[in-house]
Amino acid sequence: MKAEIITIGDELLIGQVVNTNQAFIAQKLSEIGVRVGLMESVGDDIQEILDAFKVAWQRNDVVIVTGGLGPTHDDITKKAVCSFFDSDLVPNEEIRRHIEELVKKWNRQWGPTYEEQTLFPRKAKLVPNPIGTAGGMLFEEHNKYLFVLPGVPYEMKEMIEQSVVPFLASRNTGSVIRHLTLRTTGISESMLAAQLGDIDALLQGTKLAFLPSPTGVRLRITVYGTDVPSVENLLRETEQRIRSRVEKYIYGTNEEELETAIGKLLTERKLTIAVAESCTGGLLADKITDVSGSSNYFQQGLVTYSNKSKVEVLGVPSILLEQHGAVSKEVAEAMAAGIRRVARTDIGLSTTGIAGPTGATSVKPLGLVWVGYADAETTLAVRFQFGDGRRRVKERAAQAALELLRRKLLKLD
Amino acid sequence: MKAEIITIGDELLIGQVVNTNQAFIAQKLSEIGVRVGLMESVGDDIQEILDAFKVAWQRNDVVIVTGGLGPTHDDITKKAVCSFFDSDLVPNEEIRRHIEELVKKWNRQWGPTYEEQTLFPRKAKLVPNPIGTAGGMLFEEHNKYLFVLPGVPYEMKEMIEQSVVPFLASRNTGSVIRHLTLRTTGISESMLAAQLGDIDALLQGTKLAFLPSPTGVRLRITVYGTDVPSVENLLRETEQRIRSRVEKYIYGTNEEELETAIGKLLTERKLTIAVAESCTGGLLADKITDVSGSSNYFQQGLVTYSNKSKVEVLGVPSILLEQHGAVSKEVAEAMAAGIRRVARTDIGLSTTGIAGPTGATSVKPLGLVWVGYADAETTLAVRFQFGDGRRRVKERAAQAALELLRRKLLKLD
Repeated sequence: MKAEIITIGDELLIGQVVNTNQAFIAQKLSEIGVRVGLMESVGDDIQEILDAFKVAWQRNDVVIVTGGLGPTHDDITKKAVCSFFDSDLVPNEEIRRHIEELVKKWNRQWGPTYEEQTLFPRKAKLVPNPIGTAGGMLFEEHNKYLFVLPGVPYEMKEMIEQSVVPFLASRNTGSVIRHLTLRTTGISESMLAAQLGDIDALLQGTKLAFLPSPTGVRLRITVYGTDVPSVENLLRETEQRIRSRVEKYIYGTNEEELETAIGKLLTERKLTIAVAESCTGGLLADKITDVSGSSNYFQQGLVTYSNKSKVEVLGVPSILLEQHGAVSKEVAEAMAAGIRRVARTDIGLSTTGIAGPTGATSVKPLGLVWVGYADAETTLAVRFQFGDGRRRVKERAAQAALELLRRKLLKLD
Repeated sequence: MKAEIITIGDELLIGQVVNTNQAFIAQKLSEIGVRVGLMESVGDDIQEILDAFKVAWQRNDVVIVTGGLGPTHDDITKKAVCSFFDSDLVPNEEIRRHIEELVKKWNRQWGPTYEEQTLFPRKAKLVPNPIGTAGGMLFEEHNKYLFVLPGVPYEMKEMIEQSVVPFLASRNTGSVIRHLTLRTTGISESMLAAQLGDIDALLQGTKLAFLPSPTGVRLRITVYGTDVPSVENLLRETEQRIRSRVEKYIYGTNEEELETAIGKLLTERKLTIAVAESCTGGLLADKITDVSGSSNYFQQGLVTYSNKSKVEVLGVPSILLEQHGAVSKEVAEAMAAGIRRVARTDIGLSTTGIAGPTGATSVKPLGLVWVGYADAETTLAVRFQFGDGRRRVKERAAQAALELLRRKLLKLD
């Protein structure tokens, strides 16, 4: 099956919004062996939308369209697709009931914009939108499929996963693609490549992509084939060869975040944790609490942004702040030990650093971060140098703190 | 001038990489009045690249191509563009000197991949790449321009800003585009549309787009014209008409985040703040500390995830927790007052709620959040119902807390 993705919206063409929908859809289609040949973004212009539909519908088995399904005047995709398939709009009772439920749940008033959204193309099948009011559409002709979905990412994602992928997977046979992503952190792309060694011996015909980001490098293995068992076997073999070379840097697979991996370790070991943050400003606690069930091990977080609160709440001796400054090994250690004591947890974790853009000195440059760790036996701190960019320094510091915790829990060096 | 952007690379079509290049280029072109009509992504396939070139070259004044200029076997853009313009490759001395300098600076060895990159299409002009080895190309025919740039974001960005934008700006006269985005929160897209009323009277020929997200709806005004003063005037007039109808929901313009707007208000009024978070788990403090200079007004954050820490650290009376539960008006108020007292700030802000997926009951559904606020005169809490999705509930709750603070500071109801 060959597919094309068309994303609609002026906000894309003036660069106001980065198009994350395309990559998400492409990835999901690729996972079920549907090959995406082209991705296009067009503006909120009915003629340009129709032109795009025409070309895409000719040369593909599947066309996925997102955007322009909302209730306001600039949302013209429904009009365009009705014109393209020569369909009229009729009231749809299923959509009406669904919107009525949402409106009630949200404590809102029924109004003309909701009324408008109950109208649905006669020739389309409904693709349910469990979390929003804009219903998705499926047009089918001669074993070709055109889906129209809302552009709001969380609604679109739900619909791709719940409806589009299962529907297409059941119709696309004879072509198998499998991907596996190994997530690493604490090692650069070039060091990782060096440790992996000879690439042909490593891959033996499978494919590998390096995907670097500020918080780590993901390694994505891809295998193409015609039957599931042999493809999955090749995938597992390559995974094992990679793991045997760089295992200690791998914290998870596919979409697993570092905080999820840590949550599992803490739960297994029945350990509790608390954090004291300076430069990460709450991001470390935010990441930890993104994990459902984190209330079982996460007791307390403190964002001690001022020196005063470091002293008063954490009991950091003020002499340490005077002698070494807030961004120092000594203060990072005192913060980790302090939060562990205050919250009465097994482990304390801390961050202190210079996120910028101000606050740097010649001896303490922008991006300097100390991460502290304390348990019943050890108190220590590790120094990092993260460069500039306030948000980037925060992200990298929070990741480094989580990775330090993971290595301590697993007794990796 | 009308433009099209073509990005090349298999990694885009399997969704391995989110295409940030397109949005960057589109934004830069838009700023100089060059209108992007279409953006396309194609794979590393010479025929598909040629097809895309052909269509784009026919219908545009400017085509920007990125990707596939590297030195490895899958980089075929140079071959494709030579075939398209019927040009051969010749050694280019300027590129050779540049690569020699880089190779020396990087402490690398000269090799066949560098040799290959010194070859350049005879019919193209060089677009310098100050930080990489792949030279950019400009093909010019009958006042039409096709640029080919590398896909590496930081190289591409440098070349767009240093070469492409100045070149096109000097040739694009007589066409002006201006955008302005008004950022709202605390009101749904459909309520906003209802309050804005008759859209033709509102816009009077200018354009308006509604851009919803979980944390608010952005309103983007666009005006096209031929001279700067009249375009800017129309933009201001539409802005004023919109503001007169929905002013109280607008917290900022363009890229300004709510936390930035609040930072300005707190700084102006010389007020300090501290936050106590339960369901937002650190995200509220994280957002506040994303603003450079926030250490001037943000004193302390507490993530009191357990009831124990709410009682011990914030002094929330345990009878309130027993009688009303942690997710209640009473506890939200006690948390806000508690953190204000503990941190000795002018204002205390708190969140408590059910982020899910577990913890909901029939009277306290998933997504129920109380936001508390305390200053010298008032202590109060506001109830919200945010639906499901753990991360989404956190995002919306943090935004609601910031918005409650903004409204209090501005004395909006």
